[in-house]
Formats: sequence, structure tokens, C-alpha cells
Amino acid sequence: MDRPIDNQIPFDVQDAGRDPYALFDRWFTAAMQFDPHNAAVAALATVSSENRPSLRYILLKKQGVEGFVFYTNYESRKGVELAGNPAAALTFWWPAFERQVRVEGDVHPVSEAESDAYFASRPRESQISAWASPQSRSIVEPVTLDVYQEQFAGQQIVRPAYWGGLVLVPSRFEFWQGRASRLHDRVQFSCSESGWQIDRLAP
Amino acid sequence: MDRPIDNQIPFDVQDAGRDPYALFDRWFTAAMQFDPHNAAVAALATVSSENRPSLRYILLKKQGVEGFVFYTNYESRKGVELAGNPAAALTFWWPAFERQVRVEGDVHPVSEAESDAYFASRPRESQISAWASPQSRSIVEPVTLDVYQEQFAGQQIVRPAYWGGLVLVPSRFEFWQGRASRLHDRVQFSCSESGWQIDRLAP
Repeated sequence: MDRPIDNQIPFDVQDAGRDPYALFDRWFTAAMQFDPHNAAVAALATVSSENRPSLRYILLKKQGVEGFVFYTNYESRKGVELAGNPAAALTFWWPAFERQVRVEGDVHPVSEAESDAYFASRPRESQISAWASPQSRSIVEPVTLDVYQEQFAGQQIVRPAYWGGLVLVPSRFEFWQGRASRLHDRVQFSCSESGWQIDRLAP
Repeated sequence: MDRPIDNQIPFDVQDAGRDPYALFDRWFTAAMQFDPHNAAVAALATVSSENRPSLRYILLKKQGVEGFVFYTNYESRKGVELAGNPAAALTFWWPAFERQVRVEGDVHPVSEAESDAYFASRPRESQISAWASPQSRSIVEPVTLDVYQEQFAGQQIVRPAYWGGLVLVPSRFEFWQGRASRLHDRVQFSCSESGWQIDRLAP
């Protein structure tokens, strides 16, 4: 795959601006234009009650100054872990640009109204699967939709109370631009009382 | 990008075998054949002393029954966090196959001899950058190699003691095959006294 940019162009604190959301949007927009199927997929780390990390990919649905929003079953492993410890880390990797963005902060549920609106926008089969699947639980037989398809026949499907949005509110960003000889450029934004503090990190 | 397989083919416990390393090799080999530049890149989660997750991408260098090996500066954020809490999670995402593999376990350093051998195999500029960069620290000026290039001129470069390999020894694997309507197939291997216990998880 041709690389859309020359990764020898240095990226440094003076190129990062003062607003991490604006910089995220710039990088995210470039990644989406290049690879719309994969640019919104990011790794999400949570911490268990035994203080062990767990890690899976999620699909980012929305981002802005309110935070980074994704949807899940609140009774899934990530839902349960985040209810116990709201700290999370979300990391994007856009290989064609050799760019990584790390976002860290606490997670809380979005409003019921926002979850309802998003659920209503989903394909019917995905709505039924939210009812049919006890996400992350051990199961004896594969999940099928038949029973729920019959049950909901001809009806509008409402959102299950255990399914909805979560929003990560960032307290730290890191923008990482890969370069040759592993002299990568790293710029960190950390939340402080006087706003975002910006630092250059060693590669 | 054309997808190399039809993700409508179900994957289930009977297709997973009894050996998670063999299954990992099968999926990893397929991913490497399709996309050798990116298949060995995986997300690594660690946990800070405040029980917050942190998350970055690493390059897998070796895997087998001894575990999953990658290299770093032991004084980097991940190195420091793993020295305090060895629990880690490593997750691969191979979008062309819609496959995710989650690996969890404890991390320990590889032998000095193994780190020496790997360091000696690296390009000279990468060896110098291991000396030049206090990884993850806040720095005033960008790192350059000039001073160390002079210092090491005409000499073999030895491995810094703070740089080397880490190996994640798995106690849990999860193999995730994406399917339509989010009825993904998930098979979990968890380490027990009688060997690997295999479970089907709800999507």
C-alpha cells in the first residue's frame, strides 16, 4: 500500500497546536480519508478488580470535546470492569501514516436519550443481537437470532437497559509520529489546572 | 483491499483444536502472508501504580510456547509499569480477516544473552538510538544521534543494560472471528491445573 505521506517529515511541539482535540481531528480525518473501513477501530484497555489489564478493539462512534464515544453491553467484561474502575486507555494506530494516538481518561455512560437514539439508528439484526447475546459470558450453544426474531416480529425493537454508550473523557493525549531509526516524534498533552500542558517525549 | 477470506464461515470450538499456540500460529501465518508489514504490530496494555491502564503498540519479535517476545527500554513507561505489576494484555487485530486475538499473562525479562543477540542483529542507527533516547521522558530538545555517533565511531555498539526483551507468558487466549450482524465467534482458552480449558463466549 502506498504511504500517503513522507514519514521523514518531522512532527514536533510547534506543529501540535494548543488543542489536542483539533489535532486529533486533523489526524483522524486524514486516516478516515485514506482507510474509512479501519480508521475508527481502536484498542481499548480496562483494568480488572485484580488490577490486571484487559484489551480489545472497539469502534469509535463519535468524538469531540465531550470525549470519545463507543457502544457496548454494560454487562460485558469491559462494561463490568469500567463500572468498578473507570480508568481507560484508547489507542489508535494508523499504519499508512505511521501515526499512533494515545488517549487516557475516565469513562462514564452517555445519557439514556443518546443511547436510545443510537440504538434506533442500527440495523434490525444488530438490534436483535443486542437482545440475544449475553456478551462475554461462557455459552453452551452459539447465539442465534431466531427466537428473538419471532418475538419481535412486526414490532419496533427497544434498547435493552444493559446496552448503551460509554464516553471516555481524556485527561492525557499522546501523538506519536513514526520516523526512521526509531527516532519517533512524541508530543504529550496532559490536563492541568491551567489547561493542557504540552511536552515533547523521548522516542 | 480485497478480503482474503469469507468472514461468513463460522469458527467455533471444534475448529479451535486443543493448543492455543498452534491456533495462534495458523492465524498469525495467514495474517503475515497477507500483510507482512503490519501483522506483527499489536496493542500492549499495562497497569500503572495507580491502577490505571496504559496502552501502546509494539512489534512482536518472536512467539512460541515460551511466550510472546518484544523489545523495549526497561526505563520506558511500559518497562517501569511492568516492573511494578507484571500483568499485561496483548491484542492483535487483523482487519482483512476480521480476526482479533487477545493474549493475557505475566511479563518477565528475557535472558541477557537473548537480549544481547537481538541487539547485535539490529541496524547500527537503531543501536545508537537505544543509547541516545531516555524513552518516554519529557525532553527539551529532540533526540539526535550525532554525539553518540561520534562516541561510537569505529566501535561495535554494546547493548545498554536498560534495554532488552520482555516476554509475556500467556494464561488466557481469546480468538475472535468477526461475523455479520455482530454474531461474532469467540473461543477462549484459559490456563487451569489440568491444562487449557476451552469455552465458547457470547459475542
